[in-house]
Parts: sequence; structure tokens; C-alpha cells
Amino acid sequence: MRADEIAEDYPAVSCESGALDAVRLLAEHRLPGIVVTDSGAAPTAVLPASQVVRFLVPGYVLDDPSLAGVLTESMADRVADKLAGKTVRDLLPRDKPAEPPVVRGDDTVVEVAALMARNRCPLVAVVERGRMLGVITASRLLQVALAPE
Amino acid sequence: MRADEIAEDYPAVSCESGALDAVRLLAEHRLPGIVVTDSGAAPTAVLPASQVVRFLVPGYVLDDPSLAGVLTESMADRVADKLAGKTVRDLLPRDKPAEPPVVRGDDTVVEVAALMARNRCPLVAVVERGRMLGVITASRLLQVALAPE
Repeated sequence: MRADEIAEDYPAVSCESGALDAVRLLAEHRLPGIVVTDSGAAPTAVLPASQVVRFLVPGYVLDDPSLAGVLTESMADRVADKLAGKTVRDLLPRDKPAEPPVVRGDDTVVEVAALMARNRCPLVAVVERGRMLGVITASRLLQVALAPE
Repeated sequence: MRADEIAEDYPAVSCESGALDAVRLLAEHRLPGIVVTDSGAAPTAVLPASQVVRFLVPGYVLDDPSLAGVLTESMADRVADKLAGKTVRDLLPRDKPAEPPVVRGDDTVVEVAALMARNRCPLVAVVERGRMLGVITASRLLQVALAPE
């Protein structure tokens, strides 16, 4: 089984897109993460939903979790304000993985799994000649591996 | 908004369950991860799908990724054999997070987001009096935070 046989359609966002648009895609489609492309539409990173939730939390709560309980509700609701003016690039974790979360169409299931396990990323982009064919999530990979031949 | 208002039904597995059952749940429901409970049914960990894919990869490929391409297809298909006899406990990452991925029913959205961001976990269990009420995924949290009041 090759990567291009199991890839699925999936939205992607440019690193120059508005941060709020990316968060809306993650939320509306209930995605574990979203592929981020450079300005030339080549996938370069994955933005996991579990990283984006950081922007719901004020800096002083990240430093001292005991302060989270005293916040008023409206702080979470103001996420739209907080993300306004930010790009997708601003949301990406600073400690970038060493390799881009990208596989080729003719890569095997084992190659895809190895990349995903090394980088602990919830999904990878399948790319052929600079064009994104689709995405493989970790649960899709397990589904394929368990399917009867 | 409180955690118990936004929690969703979600399967959980005991750390003593068969590894293959947990992987089947992740695959069939296309989940980003699954809650793992101790023998007393209290949630203690989350098993991310992106960690389980490690078991599709032979050890020598994790060490030397260049060997992945020379594998025959059947290696991935043999995952069922590889997981036979293993428990969910065997699948959990060794470097356990410092705090369990658990929130209380009356925790706020900000408290949930802070825990998720600190531990980079794709979901948390909502627990009240030792009983799991449900699960909140990162994308569910974003959905709630973006929803109009």
C-alpha cells in the first residue's frame, strides 16, 4: 500500500493566512491538526490543534496554572480578538521538528508511520511534484494497517 | 462554560485491555487518541494515535529510516501479530507526562486549554467523583471558544 492510495482530502492553509481562519478550519471540521504550506503552496509544517489551544490561555496562566480558575469566562470568548492580526506562522510552535511532515506518493505505510512516530505528529501531507495530494492521519494509518488484505 | 458542559461521549480502555482492542477503537472511530483508565476505571493517561503508529515500524527502521523503503508490504499488515499478547500499558509512551490528562467537571475552558497546552495532549478526560463524564478534544475546545456567546 502506497501513501497516495490512502491519502484523504484535507484542507491546508498558507503560513501567511490569517490565524483565525486556520483555527476556524480546525474547529469546524474537528481536525487534530492542519497542514501549513509556504507561499509557494508546498507543505512545510503541521499545526496541531493541541498547540493552538495555547492561545486560549493568557501568558500568566501558562506560567502559574493556579490562576486559571480565577479568570472570568469572557477571556476564552475573546480568542477571536487575540488572534486578529496574527498569521498562521505566528501560531506554529517555536521548536520546529527537524524534518517537514511530508511523504511522497510512493512511500510505503511503514515509511509514513516511521516519520509520524519520530515527529509525534498527528498527520502528514502526501506530496508529489510539489503538489499536495492529500493527508494521512495517524488513525487513518492504523485503519489501513488493521484492514484485511 | 464548564468542562462538563462541553464534554463528549468517547470510548476509554483499561490499561489492562488488549493492545489490539485499543488500536481498533482508534482506527474505527478515527480518534486522535484514547483515554486509558487504571484497573479502578479512573482515567490516568491518554494514548495518542500518533504514538501507536510506532508499532507499525520495525525497531531497526526507527533507528535507520533509510531502511523503511526496502521493507515488504506485509510487514505493516502484520501489525495484528505484533500487538497480540500486548496490553494497552505496553503501548503507552515511556516518558509519561507529569500530570494526568484529567480535568474536573467545574473546570473552565481556560483551565482545560492550559492543561492541554502544557502537556501537548490531543484530548483530556472530564472526571467527577472518580467517574469519567466524557472527553474534550483540542478541536472541540477551539469550537467552543469560537462559538458566539
